[in-house]
Amino acid sequence: MTSASFPSKLLEVAVNEFAKLPGIGRKTALRLVLHLLKQEKEEVFKFSDSIRMMREEIMYCKSCHNISDSETCHICADTNRNHELICVVESIRDVMAIENTQQFNGIYHVLGGVISPMDGIGPDDLTIGPLEEKIKSDQVNEVVFALSTTMEGDTTNFYLFKKFEKYGVKMTTIARGVSIGDELEYTDEVTLGRSLVNRLPFENTL
Amino acid sequence: MTSASFPSKLLEVAVNEFAKLPGIGRKTALRLVLHLLKQEKEEVFKFSDSIRMMREEIMYCKSCHNISDSETCHICADTNRNHELICVVESIRDVMAIENTQQFNGIYHVLGGVISPMDGIGPDDLTIGPLEEKIKSDQVNEVVFALSTTMEGDTTNFYLFKKFEKYGVKMTTIARGVSIGDELEYTDEVTLGRSLVNRLPFENTL
Repeated sequence: MTSASFPSKLLEVAVNEFAKLPGIGRKTALRLVLHLLKQEKEEVFKFSDSIRMMREEIMYCKSCHNISDSETCHICADTNRNHELICVVESIRDVMAIENTQQFNGIYHVLGGVISPMDGIGPDDLTIGPLEEKIKSDQVNEVVFALSTTMEGDTTNFYLFKKFEKYGVKMTTIARGVSIGDELEYTDEVTLGRSLVNRLPFENTL
Repeated sequence: MTSASFPSKLLEVAVNEFAKLPGIGRKTALRLVLHLLKQEKEEVFKFSDSIRMMREEIMYCKSCHNISDSETCHICADTNRNHELICVVESIRDVMAIENTQQFNGIYHVLGGVISPMDGIGPDDLTIGPLEEKIKSDQVNEVVFALSTTMEGDTTNFYLFKKFEKYGVKMTTIARGVSIGDELEYTDEVTLGRSLVNRLPFENTL
């Protein structure tokens, strides 16, 4: 579809902007823009303003780097949570995923990514410094690494482990094994092997 | 995903707005919003403003009802085009599709939909009145119906044909038949039957 075919410059600009979003091609962008064009003005302004406001006003928690509406996020501000237990995650989405399990009562530390030389992301691009400060301050009892089980995640785990070893803090990683509901015969051999090596006393799983 | 899991109200509002778009679920909405959150502010404001401006400033051509940046769209304003030949289409997207073929030199009339009792769309919801005015004004030589080949499209074709019959204007519909590049054995029987009944002298297809 050539740009010459757009009947309006305004339409074309909006389609181009939509098409910049990941996973949205030009055809989908046009469909979305024409949909918005059919909506009430107030509805479209609400859409447009919600995005502008979000980008302009969202803050990052100064403690855990999670997104927040205030200087300290509601998780870090919660005195009922265990502030001596820090879960290290890659992104905001991981915080949401773990919160949804309702199985974690500590606080988080959002790294902002994992070490990935292929993508040009080194340790200095992540919030490792502030995490080290927290650990140094001696108010941390345990650090749980909850990173992706990819090469990059494992590299980051290892880097952090080596870096923080000297502080004598307890470091753990989330368990890796056969997913609940999975059938053994379809589980990949690496995962199955790991879950055998790291087998648990049966009573621990009750 | 419950709303309680969002770490920020601003984020939640933006995700809800995105999720209203057709074909965008809440997971995709979150992915798009987090993508925007990572972009430069200026980029996000450009996105947001392009949508607001589009909705606020886009006009509809007073002649053909196509979208336009001015009172009369660039197609209707083009004196090189044949203003006695009107192609009736359902939507703006159809105008773009036909323009891309570069095979049509007349002007358009955008109905804004097709008659569809199931969706509560009757003749009065479409721009049939203005089309009748144009035909009445005696400056129209031929009207080409280029509507979808669905039940609703056919109903609309028939309705328009009956309505405009009395004005003695030439009315045609776009040809229906086997798509170019299709193999006969995979063509559905209705289409194949139609294309046999409406067979053309071979020299017309050269």
